[in-house]
Amino acid sequence: MNNEYINKQLNHKSIRKFKNQAVPKEIIDTLLQVASRTSTSSFMQSASIINIYDKSIKKAISIIGKQGYIEESGHLFIFIADHYRNTQIIKEKKSINNVVPSMDKLIVSFSDAILMAQNVLNAAEQLGYGGVLLGSILNDTEKLIEILNLPEYTFPVLGLAIGIPDQEPQLKPRLPLQLISFDDKYQIKENYTSILNEYDEIVTTYYDLRDSNNRVDTFTNQVARVYSSNLNKRADIQNVLIKQKLLNK
Amino acid sequence: MNNEYINKQLNHKSIRKFKNQAVPKEIIDTLLQVASRTSTSSFMQSASIINIYDKSIKKAISIIGKQGYIEESGHLFIFIADHYRNTQIIKEKKSINNVVPSMDKLIVSFSDAILMAQNVLNAAEQLGYGGVLLGSILNDTEKLIEILNLPEYTFPVLGLAIGIPDQEPQLKPRLPLQLISFDDKYQIKENYTSILNEYDEIVTTYYDLRDSNNRVDTFTNQVARVYSSNLNKRADIQNVLIKQKLLNK
Repeated sequence: MNNEYINKQLNHKSIRKFKNQAVPKEIIDTLLQVASRTSTSSFMQSASIINIYDKSIKKAISIIGKQGYIEESGHLFIFIADHYRNTQIIKEKKSINNVVPSMDKLIVSFSDAILMAQNVLNAAEQLGYGGVLLGSILNDTEKLIEILNLPEYTFPVLGLAIGIPDQEPQLKPRLPLQLISFDDKYQIKENYTSILNEYDEIVTTYYDLRDSNNRVDTFTNQVARVYSSNLNKRADIQNVLIKQKLLNK
Repeated sequence: MNNEYINKQLNHKSIRKFKNQAVPKEIIDTLLQVASRTSTSSFMQSASIINIYDKSIKKAISIIGKQGYIEESGHLFIFIADHYRNTQIIKEKKSINNVVPSMDKLIVSFSDAILMAQNVLNAAEQLGYGGVLLGSILNDTEKLIEILNLPEYTFPVLGLAIGIPDQEPQLKPRLPLQLISFDDKYQIKENYTSILNEYDEIVTTYYDLRDSNNRVDTFTNQVARVYSSNLNKRADIQNVLIKQKLLNK
C-alpha cells in the first residue's frame, strides 16, 4: 500500500526516551482538536482530557507509572472516562436525579477515552513526534484520582506521553496475523505454544532498548510471567470504580 | 496545521450509507496489518479481530445493532477483547492453571481492542473509505458471542463498518474544548446547562442525515434522554462478562 500515512501507522514504535523539549502550544492545540473530533458513543462525549504541565504532578504520575520517561516527556495527556458532566446536566434538568451505574455506561466512557488516545497518538506521530500510551497510570488509580481532582463519575483510563524521540527502537514483532484475525467465527487453535515456537524465536531477537543488556524473553514466557504477576493496587480497580459511582457493588 | 492526515482526522464524520461495493482484499489486508501494529498493553496482544464475510452473520449483527447500514457496509470488523489465547498458553505451559478474572485485565483487553479499532478507522479514512464505529454490537452480547463462537476469556467490544461513502454528512459540532480539556486538574463547572446554551443551539442546526425530517434535539436534551433510556439487554453485560470468565462475581 503506497501511502505515506499508512506507512507511519505500520511502523509505529512506542517511544520511551524523549529530547528535553516541550511540545509547542500550537501542536498541543491541534492534538486537542483531534481528540475532540474523535468518534463518541451515542454522541454523549463521555471522555475528557487532562494536560499535565505542573512538574510536581508530572513527577507524581511518573512515580505511579514507575516510568521515568513519563516525567521527561514533551507533553503528557491523561484521558478520562467522564460521566460527571452529563450527570450534572441531568441533575440540573431534574429529569432524573442520579445516574445508575452500569457496566454498559462504563464501557461507553472507557471507549470514548481510549479512542481519543489512539487518535491523538496517530496525529502526534504524523506531526513527527513519538509517543507511548501509558496503561501504567492504573497502578494506583485512587492516588491518581486524588492528584487530578477527579470527581465522582470519572476515572483515569490511559495516559499518553509524547515528545521528540531520542531513541530509534526496532519494530517490535507482532503475533502472526492468522492467530489474531479470523473470518466470521473465532478459531480456536489446538496447541498455541507449538504454533508459537517460531514467533517465540523472533521475539528473542528483538533488541529491547529498555534493557539492552538482557536478551528479551520469548513471548510465551512473557505471557506466563505477566499473567501470574501480582496485581498490587491494580487489584483495587473494581472497588475504585464503585467508589467513583461508575460501577455497582 | 498544514498536514493532510491531520486534516482528515479533524474532518472525521461517521459514514452510515455505503455504496454497494465490497472493500478489496488488498485493502483489508493492509488494515489488518495496521491493527496488528497497534500499541498493546504490556506486549500481551490481548485483542483479536473477526472479519465478517458471511452474509447471514452480517445480517444477524445488523439486527443486533438495529442498524441496516451494518449489513450494507463494504467490510465489517468486530474487535474482540481476548484473554483466551494467553490463557491457553499459560495452561499449556502449566505455570498456572487458570487466569483469575480482574477488572485490571478486563480493562487491558478492552483497551487493546479499542485502540485497534481507532487505528484501523484512521487508516481506512486515509485510504478514501468512510466508516462508523459500532458500540451497538453490545445490544445483545450473549447472542453475538454465540454467533461468533467466542470462547471463554473473550468479549466483543466494538464493531467497525467501512465502505465507499454514499453520503456527505456535515461535521457534527462537538462540545467546546474548555469543557473537555483541562490543565493539571479536573475543573468542575457551576452550571453546565447555562454554559451549554450556545452549544445546544449549534447542535440543533446540525442537519442529521439519519432523520432529515426532524430537527436535531439540543445536546443537553439528548443527554437527558440517553441517560434515562432503558438499557434492555445491555443491563446484562456485567453478567455476560462474568460468564465469559473476564470478571469476578
